[in-house]
Amino acid sequence: MKIQSYVNGEWCSGDGRTDTLVNSVNDEVIGEVVSLTSGFDQILAHGRKAGGSALRKMTTHERAEKIKFLAKYLLDRKDDFYRVSYMTGATKADSWVDIEGGIGTMFSYSGIARRELNNDTFVVEGNVEPLSAGGTFVGQHILTAKEGVSLHINAFNFPVWGMLEKITPSLIAGVPVIVKPGTVTCYLTEIVVKAMIESQIFPEGSIQLICGSVGDILDHLNEQDVVTFTGSASTGRRLKAHPNIIEKSIPFTMEADSLNCCILAPDVTVDSPEFDLYIKEVAREMTTKAGQKCTAIRRAIVPNNLIDPVSEALMKRLQSTSLGDPQAEGVRMGALVGKSQREDVIAAVEQLGQSSEIILNGMQGFVPIGVESGKGAFMAPTLLHCKDPLNITTPHDVEAFGPVSTLMGYDGIDQAIELAKMGKGSLAGSVFTASRDNARDIILGTASHHGRMLVIDSTCAKESTGHGSPLAPLIHGGPGRAGGGEELGGARAIKHYMQRSAIQGSPMSLMAVTNQYVKGAELKEDRVHPFRKYFEELEIGESLLTHRRTVTEADIVNFGCLSGDHFYAHFDEIAAKDSFFEKRVAHGYFVISAAAGLFVDPGLGPVIANYGIDNLRFVEPVGIGDTIQVRLTCKRKVKKSKKPDDKYHTGVVIWDVEVKNQNDEAVAIYDILTLVERQSDD
Amino acid sequence: MKIQSYVNGEWCSGDGRTDTLVNSVNDEVIGEVVSLTSGFDQILAHGRKAGGSALRKMTTHERAEKIKFLAKYLLDRKDDFYRVSYMTGATKADSWVDIEGGIGTMFSYSGIARRELNNDTFVVEGNVEPLSAGGTFVGQHILTAKEGVSLHINAFNFPVWGMLEKITPSLIAGVPVIVKPGTVTCYLTEIVVKAMIESQIFPEGSIQLICGSVGDILDHLNEQDVVTFTGSASTGRRLKAHPNIIEKSIPFTMEADSLNCCILAPDVTVDSPEFDLYIKEVAREMTTKAGQKCTAIRRAIVPNNLIDPVSEALMKRLQSTSLGDPQAEGVRMGALVGKSQREDVIAAVEQLGQSSEIILNGMQGFVPIGVESGKGAFMAPTLLHCKDPLNITTPHDVEAFGPVSTLMGYDGIDQAIELAKMGKGSLAGSVFTASRDNARDIILGTASHHGRMLVIDSTCAKESTGHGSPLAPLIHGGPGRAGGGEELGGARAIKHYMQRSAIQGSPMSLMAVTNQYVKGAELKEDRVHPFRKYFEELEIGESLLTHRRTVTEADIVNFGCLSGDHFYAHFDEIAAKDSFFEKRVAHGYFVISAAAGLFVDPGLGPVIANYGIDNLRFVEPVGIGDTIQVRLTCKRKVKKSKKPDDKYHTGVVIWDVEVKNQNDEAVAIYDILTLVERQSDD
Repeated sequence: MKIQSYVNGEWCSGDGRTDTLVNSVNDEVIGEVVSLTSGFDQILAHGRKAGGSALRKMTTHERAEKIKFLAKYLLDRKDDFYRVSYMTGATKADSWVDIEGGIGTMFSYSGIARRELNNDTFVVEGNVEPLSAGGTFVGQHILTAKEGVSLHINAFNFPVWGMLEKITPSLIAGVPVIVKPGTVTCYLTEIVVKAMIESQIFPEGSIQLICGSVGDILDHLNEQDVVTFTGSASTGRRLKAHPNIIEKSIPFTMEADSLNCCILAPDVTVDSPEFDLYIKEVAREMTTKAGQKCTAIRRAIVPNNLIDPVSEALMKRLQSTSLGDPQAEGVRMGALVGKSQREDVIAAVEQLGQSSEIILNGMQGFVPIGVESGKGAFMAPTLLHCKDPLNITTPHDVEAFGPVSTLMGYDGIDQAIELAKMGKGSLAGSVFTASRDNARDIILGTASHHGRMLVIDSTCAKESTGHGSPLAPLIHGGPGRAGGGEELGGARAIKHYMQRSAIQGSPMSLMAVTNQYVKGAELKEDRVHPFRKYFEELEIGESLLTHRRTVTEADIVNFGCLSGDHFYAHFDEIAAKDSFFEKRVAHGYFVISAAAGLFVDPGLGPVIANYGIDNLRFVEPVGIGDTIQVRLTCKRKVKKSKKPDDKYHTGVVIWDVEVKNQNDEAVAIYDILTLVERQSDD
Repeated sequence: MKIQSYVNGEWCSGDGRTDTLVNSVNDEVIGEVVSLTSGFDQILAHGRKAGGSALRKMTTHERAEKIKFLAKYLLDRKDDFYRVSYMTGATKADSWVDIEGGIGTMFSYSGIARRELNNDTFVVEGNVEPLSAGGTFVGQHILTAKEGVSLHINAFNFPVWGMLEKITPSLIAGVPVIVKPGTVTCYLTEIVVKAMIESQIFPEGSIQLICGSVGDILDHLNEQDVVTFTGSASTGRRLKAHPNIIEKSIPFTMEADSLNCCILAPDVTVDSPEFDLYIKEVAREMTTKAGQKCTAIRRAIVPNNLIDPVSEALMKRLQSTSLGDPQAEGVRMGALVGKSQREDVIAAVEQLGQSSEIILNGMQGFVPIGVESGKGAFMAPTLLHCKDPLNITTPHDVEAFGPVSTLMGYDGIDQAIELAKMGKGSLAGSVFTASRDNARDIILGTASHHGRMLVIDSTCAKESTGHGSPLAPLIHGGPGRAGGGEELGGARAIKHYMQRSAIQGSPMSLMAVTNQYVKGAELKEDRVHPFRKYFEELEIGESLLTHRRTVTEADIVNFGCLSGDHFYAHFDEIAAKDSFFEKRVAHGYFVISAAAGLFVDPGLGPVIANYGIDNLRFVEPVGIGDTIQVRLTCKRKVKKSKKPDDKYHTGVVIWDVEVKNQNDEAVAIYDILTLVERQSDD
């Protein structure tokens, strides 16, 4: 079987190097991949032109919706993916992380984008910045899709998740992707991409796949392209310093495997629930994916007085982990991805063994279940113990990318923190403790060296996703050794594929660009009350100046009695005089209630509900005799997709509300969120 | 005179290369600088140890306060700086941008940090992320100061601003700085650093200065250090690819001069106010700092039919710009920074002249005012015209870093956008237009290639800060040719010197780390009402569960009558039945007013005022007969510095408010902001 690439709208093979791909469990040949050697300019141009221009015409929400459809499409075909995944040596649980974890990331991002980003072809970020005293010159940040492609050079260990967690934010950003999977497991990536292409959900050119080597593609990238890399630090560094990457300031996000630590805090005793949790988690991280995870625990940092019980418990647990064919009954740990990978791991263990004692040797004394003798890239868990970890740097530096960890002891929290930092930057670290103080001290002491830190105690262990799991809402990446990159982390990941630009100009210019009302822009007034207009009819900048209302002592008294709020500033003439306000003032809640009384149109109309208020500030107090008036201005509109059991087609309309007094001073400013009916679903 | 470095707590010179520094106006020798050649390990260690550990003990607000004090200290001494600044060839207006612009950035950042960041040694970012169905496992991002130094390699053109705009966010982040100014003007940077050290406002080790070459300092940086570079693209690229920078994933922010464009939109005619504004701005950008600005306009993109009037008007204006000794009466444009710089500019003009016509030659026919013949690095404005800018790449690529621009014509907006993008990434671009549609089309068409885009029309021109001015709240930097970096941009800049980490754990663990209430954490209940406690006495997680209130039809009627809000969902039984709510419901404003009635303690106490509400969502409607109850929980505290005319020492306390109904369902959730008295100013 030929594993193919998908470029320029077709499946093809190249004429370069041939790699033979082997089932890691039984050494059977799966197929071969022949690398492309030329035509990269055209592939890039196809992505930029066909894919990019089609994607950039859609809005963020439209692209996010397509991601949801694609996720559903893949989920329906997951059994095909599981079947192939076993060949990589992954167990069912390992495959679940890769396949359903990857698809889950798509669902997460589809939601994140629609909740957090405006529904336009570009993203508006943050507040309007006042840049002048008179308010005629203002600024705002926007993010637009880069006009290039994103090239994703992925690792072999997560052939599905590794692809999906990167292409998802890129496609939502509006940037077409070229996926280059780790060759040894690219047959799994290929069948997932086959499904994606077959679905025709994204426009042609949005998704391309290069199996095998990427040749000299880096030489052909331009200033608008983006590269992400996941894999070994040494390869990553070489690519990052590539002359064309440097020359054109091409963003290069690197996520390298690191020497992640797991700290057992000094408050834990052998009888604490956190002790057992610690043993389970270290063992789990060593055996999941046969330890081939960038985030896996490589350094188990344990109080010196607990080294013996920890090593005993851990060895016992590791020895009971059944190893073998992932499809065989009862198997909990599969094979490494290949024999050459196993050679690398063994070499690293040997290097580690020169300064640490191997207390559990994974190359000896195991018989994989359901596997013919000598077949498959199996290796059992291997545990080392470093006796002088503050002075021996090897276990903080040499990574065995397999089921291998090193135990190391410490005295006192400062030493634990120092050891953690000796990894020189990690993707993830964890702390097992029931002490809030230890949690705080260790987290704040180590955070500068970590992209993610996890505190496990007995109250969260059950629901915890564990030391090794990157999650869509949280950043994934780490400083130094871990590559200095940042992936995921909610909307941040989408923005990595976009250019942030500061926009400056008059309120009218800014409003024309962002399609959001900017204070100071001309208002549109109409004799039809805005609450009587459908979503489609409302224009940004459309504004209502209400009638006025004089606030009386009776209002304050009635409002206090009705609400039950008899705060002295409203009711106690003596205390109020001495107070911050220097007089009795109306309740802030009265002011916004009366404001609603001024701006609400009472009859049945397209405005269905006021369901929220944001950024309310009571700027000036309202005293007895003050007269208030409200300006209500249509600020932003977000079209919502109709769900099956929704009564109406709707959209969210955000209104800028300004309540002023008789001196034209603002007394309260805020946004209200309303649900407004749409006339149609176009 | 020896220009010195300030390292390891003392002023000193090195034993390396000697550079002689010359007054750019009269060629007189100012002094010499002898580069350091060794000891960089110690210098870095001094910064990290003495400076870093002292800075990291302070809170963000404390560091921001020190920046304000330092800014005041420098402002008091500005006359000394102006005096020296003239020697660089800068006019008074040029120097104002450099000196007072730099000090202004410090004031801006001091405010930004105190408004936007929590007052702790680290920064809490974004919301708590729910990571589990049961709520026992949650996440949040924090940023901690990197434990290294930030090394700032600056350009010669803004010896003061260039330093201050970078050290300010770094010091607020808690990261000590090493400043390496452009050698040719380092004598100005030196006297400003002298004042900073003399002030003793920041702890020793926080600020070091290396004048002259930085030798092999890059070889000594580690994973926690940060490098920023401003200057020529070629030097920047070389440093960015330095083996140790790559090896250790050291963040490297590059800001390179770019071929910035200024577009005259097709709606503008010679009679439009925008035409004159355009001429003025292009001329201003060419002559300010004698055109030695990274953001200066290098490409004037003009409709083909306006090329003649634009070139005439521009030449006229440029020819009337009086050039000479910046201290001489009436001089509007000073010298280039030195004769060698002038040679470079002339060489670049020659290169540009091979494919464009030189229509105004700045090397001929001018006599600088108040300058002895032949002295000083003077050059008059030089204007070129490229007749085939879509096919000739030189004017989009070759930068003459002096008073030099190239005019180029276009037909139609798409061509203008294409030309703008041919710069392959710029720091800043601008559009002169009175048309909102042109503004929108050009901005959205070019934003992917620009860090900042400015729209000028007659309504904002007067207050506009102009094409070339980076501002503290907006990002500065650009993709591709501009280096791909990002500076300034409000709090973003502070975060560039910090490590972002995702923190995961139980609500209690997270709360222990962030010192902010996390939903699900244990609550502390006390018989003393929280409104009766001073700021210092209130604990995070301290909570009040109020008495209950049954909402009646009378409440709705009374509230509607009092507020004036007779919306059908509250008052019209027939319409309400058919509505979204399917019944008459209480006003949302009533629910939060009644909630205040439940949680407010009416008597005089330390809680002074409820001055705002954030993130209010009405989650479920409240119907007649429903019974509500409120939980008020102390979520965050921000100590405020007492200003001279404040009545009290105060702090802001943010409370989490949850209103529930009889079924324990949340009906409204929000934060309220209160001002609370402090007992003392400690």
